[in-house]
Amino acid sequence: MIKNELFLKALRGETVSRPPVWMMRQAGRYLPEFMEIKKNYDFFTRCQTPELASEITVQPIRRFGMDAAILFSDILVIPQAMNIDVEMRPGTGPWLPKPIRTSSDLDRVEIPDVTDKLGYVMEAIKMTKEKLDDEIPLIGFAGSPWTILCYCVEGQGSKNFAMAKEFCFTKPFAAHMLLQKITDTTITYLKEKVKAGVNAVQIFDSWGGMLSPKDYQEFSWQYMQQIIDALKDETHVIAFGKGCWFALDKMAKSGASALGIDWTCSPANARYLTGGQITLQGNFDPSRLLSPPDDIKKMVAKMIDEFGKDKYIVNLGHGILPNIPVENAAAFVEAVKEYKQPGE
Amino acid sequence: MIKNELFLKALRGETVSRPPVWMMRQAGRYLPEFMEIKKNYDFFTRCQTPELASEITVQPIRRFGMDAAILFSDILVIPQAMNIDVEMRPGTGPWLPKPIRTSSDLDRVEIPDVTDKLGYVMEAIKMTKEKLDDEIPLIGFAGSPWTILCYCVEGQGSKNFAMAKEFCFTKPFAAHMLLQKITDTTITYLKEKVKAGVNAVQIFDSWGGMLSPKDYQEFSWQYMQQIIDALKDETHVIAFGKGCWFALDKMAKSGASALGIDWTCSPANARYLTGGQITLQGNFDPSRLLSPPDDIKKMVAKMIDEFGKDKYIVNLGHGILPNIPVENAAAFVEAVKEYKQPGE
Repeated sequence: MIKNELFLKALRGETVSRPPVWMMRQAGRYLPEFMEIKKNYDFFTRCQTPELASEITVQPIRRFGMDAAILFSDILVIPQAMNIDVEMRPGTGPWLPKPIRTSSDLDRVEIPDVTDKLGYVMEAIKMTKEKLDDEIPLIGFAGSPWTILCYCVEGQGSKNFAMAKEFCFTKPFAAHMLLQKITDTTITYLKEKVKAGVNAVQIFDSWGGMLSPKDYQEFSWQYMQQIIDALKDETHVIAFGKGCWFALDKMAKSGASALGIDWTCSPANARYLTGGQITLQGNFDPSRLLSPPDDIKKMVAKMIDEFGKDKYIVNLGHGILPNIPVENAAAFVEAVKEYKQPGE
Repeated sequence: MIKNELFLKALRGETVSRPPVWMMRQAGRYLPEFMEIKKNYDFFTRCQTPELASEITVQPIRRFGMDAAILFSDILVIPQAMNIDVEMRPGTGPWLPKPIRTSSDLDRVEIPDVTDKLGYVMEAIKMTKEKLDDEIPLIGFAGSPWTILCYCVEGQGSKNFAMAKEFCFTKPFAAHMLLQKITDTTITYLKEKVKAGVNAVQIFDSWGGMLSPKDYQEFSWQYMQQIIDALKDETHVIAFGKGCWFALDKMAKSGASALGIDWTCSPANARYLTGGQITLQGNFDPSRLLSPPDDIKKMVAKMIDEFGKDKYIVNLGHGILPNIPVENAAAFVEAVKEYKQPGE
């Protein structure tokens, strides 16, 4: 039994005294105690060493007391386990030296034995659960198959992922084969995470918003739906598609417990587009955490008023930025804990 | 009198036999005859030499026969004229060596004498009008103040323009001062373009979709509205905000003659969000021009069916990409010229 049930109650659609709060990418980047660890261990060492990953996961909880923890890891551990080399280059970010550009490149893509290749993630989950001591729930995550394909094809981040789209539009059979391999691996991976102890999983479709509604359905959503179908009876699934406002109606009927919303979608639009029943999570502009703390608190209170306190999880609209002052992140969490409904 | 009136009729909301077609960034990049010119003249020489700019402008018209030409130029001629250095680095794109990051950086930003500093643009317009010989209309353009600010602050392109947003959110007074200076310059600039002979102007808000609806209103839309107010009695204004679906309702009431739509917004959503009365322009995914020509033709016909042939200008949802085969661009234009209504 988890002691602080706010997050799970929100996922179940139950009424709460105040909404739960956590922040995408809350573990890492902007935290001084994380930067200390970063000095001594490179990116994948941090991900692959359960002692480090679990320590980084609980750091923001100790400091800010969010209502949920999210395992420190990366969406690119999946292609890495599938025999696609992934490096993390300081300054550049992810770097895949041998990207997938042709049908024959697919031959070297493997569907891995997840317990063998990604056992370190499961160990990190078990160790984190011990550290959390059932105080709050733990979230596991994966990238959407489309978003993973974007990196596999492009080989790095991109403004518009034009090469990934070119791959899909000129070699659709190869693209679907790759997407299905990623989907199958992701389903096994997330099921193992649930067995290891996570209380919910989130699927990040960071680049879904690069696609037209029709192409989104074909190259992204149908694979996310497969993952939701496979997981929804075992755990809560949160589906987050950045820029995917046009697909929210379909997402709301998917069986996901909650949907992530980015900051371009007002709370009213988000409730309208999702049909008003499903739990929503979001959607503070990460750059707005650069405003003065008092302004942040006012904006957060207004955001909760607009979403409503129930069926709502306070979060950012995408990951926290590295240059956010710690006191500003603190103001964000405090604003939620201090929240009073209008007239209360 | 312009002989081919399809584009102007669509802007006036009049019924047409088929919708007009042009493509954002149709002059340049993917055209072999442009690449020949590019070999011998650097970017700003091409912009600043009326013979070259007018020649590049009419190249795609000769080859494909679009229903409107758009002057070859760049949105960054505005900051350049305002005493902010702009270079174009092959591979990187725009590079501003001395970006605007502080209030004191604003001291060196000038409101220029447009006829002096940007006279070459007006010369290019006059020369292009002669070459076009009133066959089709000529479009002039400018970046939105917010999009120009993005480059002035960031100093180059960016995935999320986090520095530009940081500038606005931490130094709002300086940001508004810069935005107003850009707005004032842009209004004078576009009025001069109208005097020089353009038949319509388009405002490109390429990075408006990075902002929340509230911040969009504050840092982008209010300045675009000023430009529309100042120009709408003199010419047709087309307002294009990439990723700005959330602001389409307001844009539809702005006095603009037409709104540009990107490919994440289905035709049905675009008509719904704009209230169903205003002329719309768009919204083919530029990456979809990589599909085989026969597929392109089918997709274009379907797009016209969905938007409806009236109050509609066929276009891409953003600029054409450099790697588009010429025959695919041709298929896009041909599909419009061959268009027959369902049942026709």
